[in-house]
Amino acid sequence: MATVIWADQQDIPASDRGLAYGDGVFETIRVQANLPTLRQRHVARLLEGAERLAIPLPTVQLHSVIDEAIERYACPDDWVLKLILTRGSGGRGYRPAAVAAPRLIVSAHPMPPMPPSEGVVACISSHQLLVHPRLAGLKSLARLDQVMASQAMPDECFEALMVNGTGHLLEGTRTNILVLFGNVWLMPVVSTLAVEGTMLGQIVALLRNRGEIVCEQAILPTFITQPEFLGLWLMNSVIGIVPVSQVDGTRLPVNARLATIVGQQLFMD
Amino acid sequence: MATVIWADQQDIPASDRGLAYGDGVFETIRVQANLPTLRQRHVARLLEGAERLAIPLPTVQLHSVIDEAIERYACPDDWVLKLILTRGSGGRGYRPAAVAAPRLIVSAHPMPPMPPSEGVVACISSHQLLVHPRLAGLKSLARLDQVMASQAMPDECFEALMVNGTGHLLEGTRTNILVLFGNVWLMPVVSTLAVEGTMLGQIVALLRNRGEIVCEQAILPTFITQPEFLGLWLMNSVIGIVPVSQVDGTRLPVNARLATIVGQQLFMD
Repeated sequence: MATVIWADQQDIPASDRGLAYGDGVFETIRVQANLPTLRQRHVARLLEGAERLAIPLPTVQLHSVIDEAIERYACPDDWVLKLILTRGSGGRGYRPAAVAAPRLIVSAHPMPPMPPSEGVVACISSHQLLVHPRLAGLKSLARLDQVMASQAMPDECFEALMVNGTGHLLEGTRTNILVLFGNVWLMPVVSTLAVEGTMLGQIVALLRNRGEIVCEQAILPTFITQPEFLGLWLMNSVIGIVPVSQVDGTRLPVNARLATIVGQQLFMD
Repeated sequence: MATVIWADQQDIPASDRGLAYGDGVFETIRVQANLPTLRQRHVARLLEGAERLAIPLPTVQLHSVIDEAIERYACPDDWVLKLILTRGSGGRGYRPAAVAAPRLIVSAHPMPPMPPSEGVVACISSHQLLVHPRLAGLKSLARLDQVMASQAMPDECFEALMVNGTGHLLEGTRTNILVLFGNVWLMPVVSTLAVEGTMLGQIVALLRNRGEIVCEQAILPTFITQPEFLGLWLMNSVIGIVPVSQVDGTRLPVNARLATIVGQQLFMD
């Protein structure tokens, strides 16, 4: 069992390995009408991350903490539930103790400003995103690449898109991407992503359920200038989806196709 | 000015970006006879890391906090002073606020067990160390590679040595390495290291002062089986230096050459 910390009532010891080494994982869950959206996807990713780091967390406890948080912070407006799971304190330096004493830190946050539905401006970051295969997809607490890329982002941009060492466009600092290319949806190769977003998973499942074709494919920044390119979308589990109307000064076509296909069910489990 | 947190008296808000994103840097300083060893090197690295992350920290404040810590935890035995500098709370997600409100977290720790001077057993980790050029050398709080490599390390090992994507031996999880090859000391190319150790810097400077030749050179794991190979050492600012007597079952020559040359001045600024 993890020790549950309600962040509005209790602070964290400086010895916590989440602080010391980024030794933990987290989720941010949008709560709508007091229901945690994409609950199964968030729970599955948190548990998978915990397992990959060998931080024990009973599924039952996780669900009951989510239920308790929903009750505790109940609110007619949408809000964001953040869960941080750390390995807790202990161990010898980097080496974890044989038996972990994890902490599950719970906090509630207001919704961030929503992007305009007609589209947002993005840039391509000069900070590359080099994803370690053993950490790929893991929403760990070690997120300095995202911090540095978003720190360098011009104020007018909603998002900074990041490329890997071979120049493939992977994701934004806090969003995944999807491209419409002719009649085919392109997503980056999932195993190369730093964060495998729950909303990306949701959207790909919805698209495929509607008979759309979604390909995992290395996405190059030059795709946006090709004639078959019909749109680029950003997505995460808090903001949903938003089209990109401009990248580094290049105007992109914007259309409602993705919103039309998946819009109604975006946040439904 | 950073807000100073004495970890034995005060905990950290869960909103701290060090916990949330690994957004900060740290130092562990060995204190001998109530003097912080390698003080200038530790201070320089912490300030350089703060500058690279654009976390403001006045040099004067850092020195005065170190002085205060030395007085506060004064002890005839050696101990370890740990400083964690985080960007504090605030910002919009990964994106830092325009004006940071950093925290400087101070804690005192007992010395870890010292390795036997006749040498230690090491392994080569299967967890690669992929160093982002923008993060190279930065002792950031994002240290999951080191956690995972040390977690997988067999109990009989003192250290797990890590190679990069091209198979070059870079460093241990908590130590730097140095090789004696014929009459030449080999160190890995510093710009490729995850952590550029203060003790490595100290030793290289001492060796060169004594007229020894120290080359920056890609180090391959196969070097240890070559006839010119005369020894492999691990080092950090807490344990000092220790020779490696065995790597993955291969016995290595052990000698006192490094200790003889630099031993007396290892911890002197």
